[in-house]
Amino acid sequence: MIYKILDKNSIPEYINGIPKVVEVLGKGQGLAIEEIGDGNLNYVFKIYRVGSPDRSVVLKQAVPFLRMAGEGWPLTRNRMTYEIRALHAYNDLVPEFVPTVYHSDEEMSVLVMQTLDDHTVVRHSMIHGVIFPNIGHDIGTFLAETLFRTSSLGMRSIDRRRLMDQFNLNDELCKLTEEFVFTFPYMEHESNYSNPATDEFARASIRCDTEYKLGILKFKELFLTKTDALLHADLHTGSLMANSEETFVIDMEFAFFGPFGFDIGKIIANFLLSYTSHFYHSSDDSYQNWLLIEAMTIWKRFETRFLELWDSQGSSAMVAEGFLTGKELREYKMRFLRNILHDSLGFCACSLARRTLGIAGVADIRDISDLHVRSQLEIINIKLSQLLLSMHDKIHTIEQFESTVRTFYANTNLEDMERVK
Amino acid sequence: MIYKILDKNSIPEYINGIPKVVEVLGKGQGLAIEEIGDGNLNYVFKIYRVGSPDRSVVLKQAVPFLRMAGEGWPLTRNRMTYEIRALHAYNDLVPEFVPTVYHSDEEMSVLVMQTLDDHTVVRHSMIHGVIFPNIGHDIGTFLAETLFRTSSLGMRSIDRRRLMDQFNLNDELCKLTEEFVFTFPYMEHESNYSNPATDEFARASIRCDTEYKLGILKFKELFLTKTDALLHADLHTGSLMANSEETFVIDMEFAFFGPFGFDIGKIIANFLLSYTSHFYHSSDDSYQNWLLIEAMTIWKRFETRFLELWDSQGSSAMVAEGFLTGKELREYKMRFLRNILHDSLGFCACSLARRTLGIAGVADIRDISDLHVRSQLEIINIKLSQLLLSMHDKIHTIEQFESTVRTFYANTNLEDMERVK
Repeated sequence: MIYKILDKNSIPEYINGIPKVVEVLGKGQGLAIEEIGDGNLNYVFKIYRVGSPDRSVVLKQAVPFLRMAGEGWPLTRNRMTYEIRALHAYNDLVPEFVPTVYHSDEEMSVLVMQTLDDHTVVRHSMIHGVIFPNIGHDIGTFLAETLFRTSSLGMRSIDRRRLMDQFNLNDELCKLTEEFVFTFPYMEHESNYSNPATDEFARASIRCDTEYKLGILKFKELFLTKTDALLHADLHTGSLMANSEETFVIDMEFAFFGPFGFDIGKIIANFLLSYTSHFYHSSDDSYQNWLLIEAMTIWKRFETRFLELWDSQGSSAMVAEGFLTGKELREYKMRFLRNILHDSLGFCACSLARRTLGIAGVADIRDISDLHVRSQLEIINIKLSQLLLSMHDKIHTIEQFESTVRTFYANTNLEDMERVK
Repeated sequence: MIYKILDKNSIPEYINGIPKVVEVLGKGQGLAIEEIGDGNLNYVFKIYRVGSPDRSVVLKQAVPFLRMAGEGWPLTRNRMTYEIRALHAYNDLVPEFVPTVYHSDEEMSVLVMQTLDDHTVVRHSMIHGVIFPNIGHDIGTFLAETLFRTSSLGMRSIDRRRLMDQFNLNDELCKLTEEFVFTFPYMEHESNYSNPATDEFARASIRCDTEYKLGILKFKELFLTKTDALLHADLHTGSLMANSEETFVIDMEFAFFGPFGFDIGKIIANFLLSYTSHFYHSSDDSYQNWLLIEAMTIWKRFETRFLELWDSQGSSAMVAEGFLTGKELREYKMRFLRNILHDSLGFCACSLARRTLGIAGVADIRDISDLHVRSQLEIINIKLSQLLLSMHDKIHTIEQFESTVRTFYANTNLEDMERVK
């Protein structure tokens, strides 16, 4: 089908020809269509049968320009191609954690998928102190299944190169990450966020810290050149929708083959950013404790499930049957997971800094109107980034991570901040 | 053009329609066609004008089966697709070191290129003790130009992903390397070479050496998952044709994006294998000294040229202008090259072992008919592989490499071997 931008008037005809969608929505008149997107990049519509709220789908379409800026700001629709491919891959790998796809169309840059009405965006709920009982466990499972099963441990090399080939040209979005995650925040750049006290601290600390900057480059190099597994590549708390039972991962347009630690480090960083923000949002440390326990659960569950998958696998592209003795294989697995932890902590440090200093902040902190309060929290995040980057290859277990982070926060000095809004 | 297998009868018509080839060969009757390939995989013809030996081209065509085994052993022609693409890339990057391409045709799996009549295959010449005065320098230049200029230091990310895309599906040949370079030689496997004393030593040494095998896995993982730059990926002395002035690199069907150290380590290993073989082929150590000096020259020239290219480059995908101070950048470059040296030595160790124990030996040693002499040389290579793998990240300069290798060979015990054929 030739590309055209869909709207409320043309959607009924478009979806009418798609049996799977008709199956969900039912036949005939009586559909309602609402635009529900945030309007920045894509069009997102909810389509449902009036009187039957269970009969509902979400239709997402990319347009060839930055929607918030208009047609004068062109942007290719390729991002939807990669989101479609990643969602299909994830539907095979982890159907319980991603919306069911009813229809996809790379030509039209359209996805039609399951509605998530009973779920909220995790970032905003976390600001309000909502507890998601399964979230750490779910994210850990998601990470283990997706990373193991698209790695050289879980996939035949030829199949893996063919899957990789579907994502290799996601170059525009990879470039955004190269620049906005791994470059601009650590130097003076016009795109950066600005808050005077925070800027001053950044200038006096990380931006003149050689080892810190060379550490960032180590992780930038991994991002640019390591193809361990299929990554979501934008796995923050705004890409999660959850309720007390379920967790869904959405918005996978950045997907590509990258280093193991990237998704893990990024999502843990977002839990830590929320932790920091709750010096302001909470009146005591109970929610912060929950956040840290869940962040640790992400890793623990990831590690457990990753090793289970490995144990149940015989020969792999990486380790042929008979190459190692049982004892050697156990040693190899231990070192392998330890390396992933090291890299995850390095990427976590990058995310903490870039979400503090770069253009894309987190609402957890950027939405606090008092600049002085905000800068205190921002400086905490920069210091935590420094600490984790300097320690990333010396923290060998998740328990060492916990004690490092707890000690760090316990020594945090928030002179002027009351633990109340 | 629909694929068909060319022969002496159909070649004249095929090349007649190609202006660039006609330009070299001249028009009209009077062409001679000789088959010159080794006959294992592909058909290779030399086409020349009788009486005008300068008017000459080489035509290489892949057939969809293993030629030496016949049509009953199918093998895709994809290898020629990657050879064509790599030769085009190298013609842009380093035209002085590769044959000029006159014509390529992925559909027909055909390459027509410059004849190298005045050059010999380096491996065979080295067995006979031929000195190539420029070879180390030329290889170093080739490596620096190709690796730097296809890396994130020398190429924009988007262009790089597009170039990478041309090689991503070279999966069959990558898989051969995974298995025959990084897996089978280190375990009991039916494909391995066998020589009783050598087998016994391998079993008693590397095949029960946990750290050695985990070291091999480290480099196998890099091969599987690191995409630093466009590699030749089969750069041994049999892929070089040279004379006293020039060096040409040929046979690039394994080309793909892989780790920096792979090509460097492999070619240095082949110089060391020749070094070992000259305990038998030479009556004194003069040729061995030349080989070691040239092996060092490969690295020295590579490093010098790589840094020159880097110095002449401003901002890059890896290091944006202004990200580091001048002093920090110098430190980063030093560490970057040191890491490449470490990885090169690791890959060198893999090549030494696999060329000794695996199916694909080197004629330098495998052509020695006395099994006892051969096994002594093979055991030297295994020991050198062990030494270099265990030391790879402790050798920080090429001078340390030299003294490590010289000390190793000086302590070599060749009881029963006279330095004469």
